[in-house]
Amino acid sequence: MKIEHFATVQFYDTDCGGVVSNIAYLRFVEEARTIQFAELGLSLDDINKSQIFPVVTRTEIDYRAPAKLGDKIRISAFLETVGKVRAICGFTLETTREEGKNITLSVAKQTAALVQMPSGKPRRVPAEWSKMTTSC
Amino acid sequence: MKIEHFATVQFYDTDCGGVVSNIAYLRFVEEARTIQFAELGLSLDDINKSQIFPVVTRTEIDYRAPAKLGDKIRISAFLETVGKVRAICGFTLETTREEGKNITLSVAKQTAALVQMPSGKPRRVPAEWSKMTTSC
Amino acid sequence: MKIEHFATVQFYDTDCGGVVSNIAYLRFVEEARTIQFAELGLSLDDINKSQIFPVVTRTEIDYRAPAKLGDKIRISAFLETVGKVRAICGFTLETTREEGKNITLSVAKQTAALVQMPSGKPRRVPAEWSKMTTSC
Amino acid sequence: MKIEHFATVQFYDTDCGGVVSNIAYLRFVEEARTIQFAELGLSLDDINKSQIFPVVTRTEIDYRAPAKLGDKIRISAFLETVGKVRAICGFTLETTREEGKNITLSVAKQTAALVQMPSGKPRRVPAEWSKMTTSC
Repeated sequence: MKIEHFATVQFYDTDCGGVVSNIAYLRFVEEARTIQFAELGLSLDDINKSQIFPVVTRTEIDYRAPAKLGDKIRISAFLETVGKVRAICGFTLETTREEGKNITLSVAKQTAALVQMPSGKPRRVPAEWSKMTTSC
Repeated sequence: MKIEHFATVQFYDTDCGGVVSNIAYLRFVEEARTIQFAELGLSLDDINKSQIFPVVTRTEIDYRAPAKLGDKIRISAFLETVGKVRAICGFTLETTREEGKNITLSVAKQTAALVQMPSGKPRRVPAEWSKMTTSC
Repeated sequence: MKIEHFATVQFYDTDCGGVVSNIAYLRFVEEARTIQFAELGLSLDDINKSQIFPVVTRTEIDYRAPAKLGDKIRISAFLETVGKVRAICGFTLETTREEGKNITLSVAKQTAALVQMPSGKPRRVPAEWSKMTTSC
Repeated sequence: MKIEHFATVQFYDTDCGGVVSNIAYLRFVEEARTIQFAELGLSLDDINKSQIFPVVTRTEIDYRAPAKLGDKIRISAFLETVGKVRAICGFTLETTREEGKNITLSVAKQTAALVQMPSGKPRRVPAEWSKMTTSC
């Protein structure tokens, strides 16, 4: 499975270097992952009701080109690997500049586990997720 | 009562206008309020245990002069007014520039109520707080 | 003039009180203001080119009801008052809960000035903005 | 070289899962890196003057145990590897719980390059940094 999400770079995403802060990219990734998990049957409403939370256990992110104020960012999210208690999601963040050229801003991977709150007990990743893996 | 807190402006506090984002000031205010409430007997540990949370019901903030990357900010927090179910806290944010001149960056007021979680029921503000009011 | 913007409450917007952090509302307000200013001829692209930045000089925000993870928030932005060097924008933040009931989460006002960067010199607010004022 | 920095978990660092948001850890890492770079001769004041900015090109972060509201976090920063145009910094984030037990919350690595603004031209990492490498 693959989902796409779009975000516009806001003032609060940038820093005084004139470009998007390395931290802000993680908000774009989280928004895309939220949509991805909703498609997998774990929407925010589902989470509120079941109190089964996705927990990020690892993030890897490479910053390739700086994004700027007003850029429209296209975030693609993939389900890359599904294990018993962990799933690895891949993300690409791209923008199209005035000249029509596509620019890869960043690529990222996040490992997520499912946890039952408030006990904190790990939950199995649904078996059907493994049929939905894809790659960038 | 009056408490003082110090913060250094980080990259993530600034935006591409070259100065501190209007939103970031609220983090400085919250840090000072956390220290203030701890002195009033409502530390983060107390909150974790009692599940009585301070809830901000109103914020007013004036931005007087722009803060910049690396500025050391002195945040003073005052307990201005104490009612039955609400307290009003005042804040001044200042820095000292190289020339030794004191600059007021921002002044703010926040109204806070106390709420018992998870019921969300309002709680009385402790009566002894009213002896501790002061003004900027 | 009036514009509407929609946002979905993300994990990073909430805090351990179980509701949206008072600080996160300012991000929703800023997104709406960005759209509002684009309609007024001051889009993020325009800002990048002209280096005329809107600067928030005052924020007032009342928190009326707590927003929660997954809430769809409708932010309405109004241009309330236009002066020579300042404009006051009004905002209402609402959501519709399952029962179809409309809930006002927050109301806010921001005063903005226009500043030429990097000189920091104030700029006049365009005269035509005064024909576009409206109220909540 | 190794530096230590301390931070207290604030409300705005947590999310409705009851623990610190994965994104907030990057703020703690950035604060420690700022202190580390100041010790290496690249303080925020130096950056303001020289307009040579450290730019993060990659982050890897593992989340080992959840941090909670009020936790005192000790962030240790190491300079692990120094190349011609890149340096790799390592970070450990730990807290001590009531029972006196030390808990590793997170470990991270960031690759940073130095960039001359506003041209965006890469700069050589100072040769003397390579004498200061150490490991966790």
